[in-house]
Amino acid sequence: MITNLLMIMQDSVAVAETAPEVVETVAAAAVDYSADITANLLTTNNVWMMVATALVFIMHLGFAGVETGFGQSKNTVNILFKNTLTPIIGILTYSLMGFNLMYPGFDVPGWFGFAGFGLETSATADNSAGYMDAGMTYWTDFLFQAMFAATAATIVSGAVAERIKLGAYLIFTVIFVGIVYPIIGSWKWGGGVLDAWGFYDFAGSTLVHSVGGWGALAGIMILGPRLGKYVDGKVIDKPGSSVPLAVIGVFLLWLGWFGFNGGSVLSADPGLVSFVLVTTSLAACAGGLGGFVTGYIAFKRLDLGMVLNGILAGLVGITAGADVIEPMNAIIVGLVAGILVVISAITLDKFKLDDVVGAVSVHLTCGVWGTLAVGIFSINPDHSFLTQLTGVAVCGVAAFVSAFVIFIVLKATVGIRVSEQHEKEGLDSHEHGIRGYTIISE
Amino acid sequence: MITNLLMIMQDSVAVAETAPEVVETVAAAAVDYSADITANLLTTNNVWMMVATALVFIMHLGFAGVETGFGQSKNTVNILFKNTLTPIIGILTYSLMGFNLMYPGFDVPGWFGFAGFGLETSATADNSAGYMDAGMTYWTDFLFQAMFAATAATIVSGAVAERIKLGAYLIFTVIFVGIVYPIIGSWKWGGGVLDAWGFYDFAGSTLVHSVGGWGALAGIMILGPRLGKYVDGKVIDKPGSSVPLAVIGVFLLWLGWFGFNGGSVLSADPGLVSFVLVTTSLAACAGGLGGFVTGYIAFKRLDLGMVLNGILAGLVGITAGADVIEPMNAIIVGLVAGILVVISAITLDKFKLDDVVGAVSVHLTCGVWGTLAVGIFSINPDHSFLTQLTGVAVCGVAAFVSAFVIFIVLKATVGIRVSEQHEKEGLDSHEHGIRGYTIISE
Amino acid sequence: MITNLLMIMQDSVAVAETAPEVVETVAAAAVDYSADITANLLTTNNVWMMVATALVFIMHLGFAGVETGFGQSKNTVNILFKNTLTPIIGILTYSLMGFNLMYPGFDVPGWFGFAGFGLETSATADNSAGYMDAGMTYWTDFLFQAMFAATAATIVSGAVAERIKLGAYLIFTVIFVGIVYPIIGSWKWGGGVLDAWGFYDFAGSTLVHSVGGWGALAGIMILGPRLGKYVDGKVIDKPGSSVPLAVIGVFLLWLGWFGFNGGSVLSADPGLVSFVLVTTSLAACAGGLGGFVTGYIAFKRLDLGMVLNGILAGLVGITAGADVIEPMNAIIVGLVAGILVVISAITLDKFKLDDVVGAVSVHLTCGVWGTLAVGIFSINPDHSFLTQLTGVAVCGVAAFVSAFVIFIVLKATVGIRVSEQHEKEGLDSHEHGIRGYTIISE
Repeated sequence: MITNLLMIMQDSVAVAETAPEVVETVAAAAVDYSADITANLLTTNNVWMMVATALVFIMHLGFAGVETGFGQSKNTVNILFKNTLTPIIGILTYSLMGFNLMYPGFDVPGWFGFAGFGLETSATADNSAGYMDAGMTYWTDFLFQAMFAATAATIVSGAVAERIKLGAYLIFTVIFVGIVYPIIGSWKWGGGVLDAWGFYDFAGSTLVHSVGGWGALAGIMILGPRLGKYVDGKVIDKPGSSVPLAVIGVFLLWLGWFGFNGGSVLSADPGLVSFVLVTTSLAACAGGLGGFVTGYIAFKRLDLGMVLNGILAGLVGITAGADVIEPMNAIIVGLVAGILVVISAITLDKFKLDDVVGAVSVHLTCGVWGTLAVGIFSINPDHSFLTQLTGVAVCGVAAFVSAFVIFIVLKATVGIRVSEQHEKEGLDSHEHGIRGYTIISE
Repeated sequence: MITNLLMIMQDSVAVAETAPEVVETVAAAAVDYSADITANLLTTNNVWMMVATALVFIMHLGFAGVETGFGQSKNTVNILFKNTLTPIIGILTYSLMGFNLMYPGFDVPGWFGFAGFGLETSATADNSAGYMDAGMTYWTDFLFQAMFAATAATIVSGAVAERIKLGAYLIFTVIFVGIVYPIIGSWKWGGGVLDAWGFYDFAGSTLVHSVGGWGALAGIMILGPRLGKYVDGKVIDKPGSSVPLAVIGVFLLWLGWFGFNGGSVLSADPGLVSFVLVTTSLAACAGGLGGFVTGYIAFKRLDLGMVLNGILAGLVGITAGADVIEPMNAIIVGLVAGILVVISAITLDKFKLDDVVGAVSVHLTCGVWGTLAVGIFSINPDHSFLTQLTGVAVCGVAAFVSAFVIFIVLKATVGIRVSEQHEKEGLDSHEHGIRGYTIISE
Repeated sequence: MITNLLMIMQDSVAVAETAPEVVETVAAAAVDYSADITANLLTTNNVWMMVATALVFIMHLGFAGVETGFGQSKNTVNILFKNTLTPIIGILTYSLMGFNLMYPGFDVPGWFGFAGFGLETSATADNSAGYMDAGMTYWTDFLFQAMFAATAATIVSGAVAERIKLGAYLIFTVIFVGIVYPIIGSWKWGGGVLDAWGFYDFAGSTLVHSVGGWGALAGIMILGPRLGKYVDGKVIDKPGSSVPLAVIGVFLLWLGWFGFNGGSVLSADPGLVSFVLVTTSLAACAGGLGGFVTGYIAFKRLDLGMVLNGILAGLVGITAGADVIEPMNAIIVGLVAGILVVISAITLDKFKLDDVVGAVSVHLTCGVWGTLAVGIFSINPDHSFLTQLTGVAVCGVAAFVSAFVIFIVLKATVGIRVSEQHEKEGLDSHEHGIRGYTIISE
């Protein structure tokens, strides 16, 4: 009995001595794993966000395809020139100031902030799991947002094509992408006033698309229609150079929207991102279908242009609420967008507002619709139609007035419209010295 | 001594009191980490599957490129119209019923099941790690499969181009993608009879490609050849509108196959997915080489069309066994496919079966070959040539008969062939009101 | 008191008995998690590397677009034929020998090694976390490198287009991709002498681009200019078939560079990869801007070709130091590259060196510049200008002499230049029997 007792006591001593070590080991192991697991998650999230960035980048080729395909062959090089310069200017401008205007880190919600020129360096950039809740690194954040920023200007380029002076367009782009877009964006995504009011715009039906669309509307109002577009009350079609190119453009835009909306989750959250991809795709399909049927009713023909713009309309429409609208409702949102885009295009022509690719109808009309649709279909009860309408109005006034003023000033100074001769003969041979296509098929 | 004993006892008491906590902490830490690790893995798997989904999506642009590039310029818009509507109809139909026909969750292996119309909602969808062994979420699963489904119809569109009525084609697509494809697919991938028999079709040489190919064959048999294709026993070439477009299409299809085959692993399993990408790429290369050499022997020229179809043939060929065929054998499978595709094209022409893009040769002939190749080269000893042949036959009968009946019924009702005048003058100006290319290079 | 003491002792006994199990559990849990965490990281890294591989693959379509777009329409099919065959030959050759020449696993740093013909099998391939520090699997490693290898030959194809015999080009490609490129690459990336000397080339400004560029220079020197390119001291422009196609090509190359540079991190390291994407994008933008401005100064027109080549120049320029050059310096590197590419193109024309797409200026001139720029801007103090210069010289001599010898031997044997008649009338109708475009638009 006493021997037993002694053994037990010895055991107890041994345990008493190792116990603290056990606790320490457990604690150490726990801490280490947490860090590793968060690091892994950051790596995965960041991979998705880099993929999304690449997808949004390719949208610039998509826009180039749509605009060049729908534009006349005598202006092909000019259109491509604009579309190539746009991401270049957009990304550079955004690196120099836009990014720090858009995400200034408001201490209190506000209307304006600026975090200084230029980007961080490899030594100062925050790539830790603490940045953006481990959703991505500082560098990915910048590049993803830079790709977004450039799209706002690209939207304008499609509407004003075939008669705008290239220099004027480039100056407009610098100001619009460098200042107007990021300031408006900061009101919601930078944590500014619209965010405080409860306005919701998931991936930018308003902040990107309608802002670009308002810019486009201001542009075509001040520029006036192309020569010979409206004659004796009739709308004269100007056949695009290449329908296949336009189709390539639309498919690339659709593809890019996987990143535009899917990346706007700002992480790779599996349920949320994949939900967004489903609503996005279904809305695109329904938009195409809506454009197809409405186009057929309106024009009594199988109008491919309306199918293509219907797809884009559906995509723009779902962008504000892709994460809060049920898939079957996403079909409705897209379908309505596809119908609206045709009605809008017809209406613009009534007012002799000449939009080469239908950018205003796609991005403004359906951007507004999509933002309001959040107020109708959102599964989040905090979202309200009235707040959505307020946000649409505030951003609309800001974007339209800014663009209008910029274009008016440009018109009064450097001039915004090419000469009548250049427009008639085509911009390519006069300004660029080469033709878009040189196809010998003797 | 007694003081010592008392200290030991006190220590023992302390240990005894903390021990359960230690155990709890350890247990808690262990449980927490397991969940986190599985969640991370789900996130990573899901990222890959979303990338794969995007890649399969872009195959639809690839098909559009191949078909428009190889089709005559007078029918460019018509072909693009079909190829744009196909994914739209395919994805919508699949969301409404196809997905639930294909993965009905058979209690016992069977021939038919249906899990009801429409999709889950954000509240009911299973995005947990329990779904698909943490390989992806419910939403990704649906979208990936939807992109797949639409390809089966696209295959048909290439063969029947330039003379089919658009309305008839669209109705065919709804039925084929919405009902025929998913039911046949359920026999293997839904856990039905073919799965029970041990039939193997990794990513769909049979279930997708030959099913589409049988549909294409039925279509061109019932439609008949284009006017002026076979004259006095000679095959008259109808030059395609744009070879660059066809090349763009083929490269995009090859790219998309990274997702088609790579995604069919249904997770991001590193060794398996990358193995599949290697076999897929090597088979594509070997197929191109096979088409090149065979085309040169057959036609005594450097026939780019045969290289391009050889690449697609290699891709289709490896699709059934991309995960079970060694890389060096994948080269053989691709090479044989590249040879077969040329022989098949020549043979079809012998029977006056007019296939605009060679869809039957690529997808049916090489789909069958690839499925049988699993019986020859698979590293899995359970795979047998006879079972593979059985699966090919069962799916072939089902797909061909279904497509044949649909086309016959359509022919007897709405009609399937455009008027002779429309075919001669081109479908674009008659049905769509615009031309594919308007290039002025005066 | 005694009862208490007994209870404490009983507790102590229980603890003493379970303690070793607790320790074991903790230990086991720790070990298990480490493996799981590393496995997850491998999966994530491998996903990124597969995405990067797909992106580099699509660069081959990018090259095809640039070369076909800038080439004359009478040679469209011929150019596409070369560009389609190049990745086919490149990947097959690399699988048979290139991979094992490039990464032979030198025991001591050296000049040559060979690990044997062919690839591993599914049974022998190392897909464990031990391979490449869990950065990717053996299969991904091979495929990523194979995609890289094929680009070196593609660079040559653009320069020598429109007059080289296809057979000669294909033989050149087999030797250049199969032997020359991997051996030179092994000196740095295979752990050979250049690596030992401290030469730095992150993603291949020298090892890929200048090697391809030297090959291109050798090719155009031996081939001579196209007929009618230099007449009476004047440079005659040969208009490209399709500017939109060239733009598609450049955007796809830019997209592909996300994988080319981003994948060269050889893992998904979040901070490092996203840093690389930022420097790469900024350099591309700055290069385009540099080409735009310099082109305007040189030619007094808005020269889209110079913008496009400026973008590529910026991309090539940043490739050697994308991970060690600060973003704001990356803008300088790109800007200089954009200026250099225009000066280089003008200089080559002075020497009647006819380069159809400007491949030598883009890949050689800017490849050299980018490699030297590491010696100027690198944040790593170990990088030296002199070592960089040495590496450039060693690789340059090796690549140029090899290519020169191959072309000289081919010239003396099978011949390298097509007949004057074929060149004048176009290679398409003579060698391929079809035309690139058959567009009827009356």
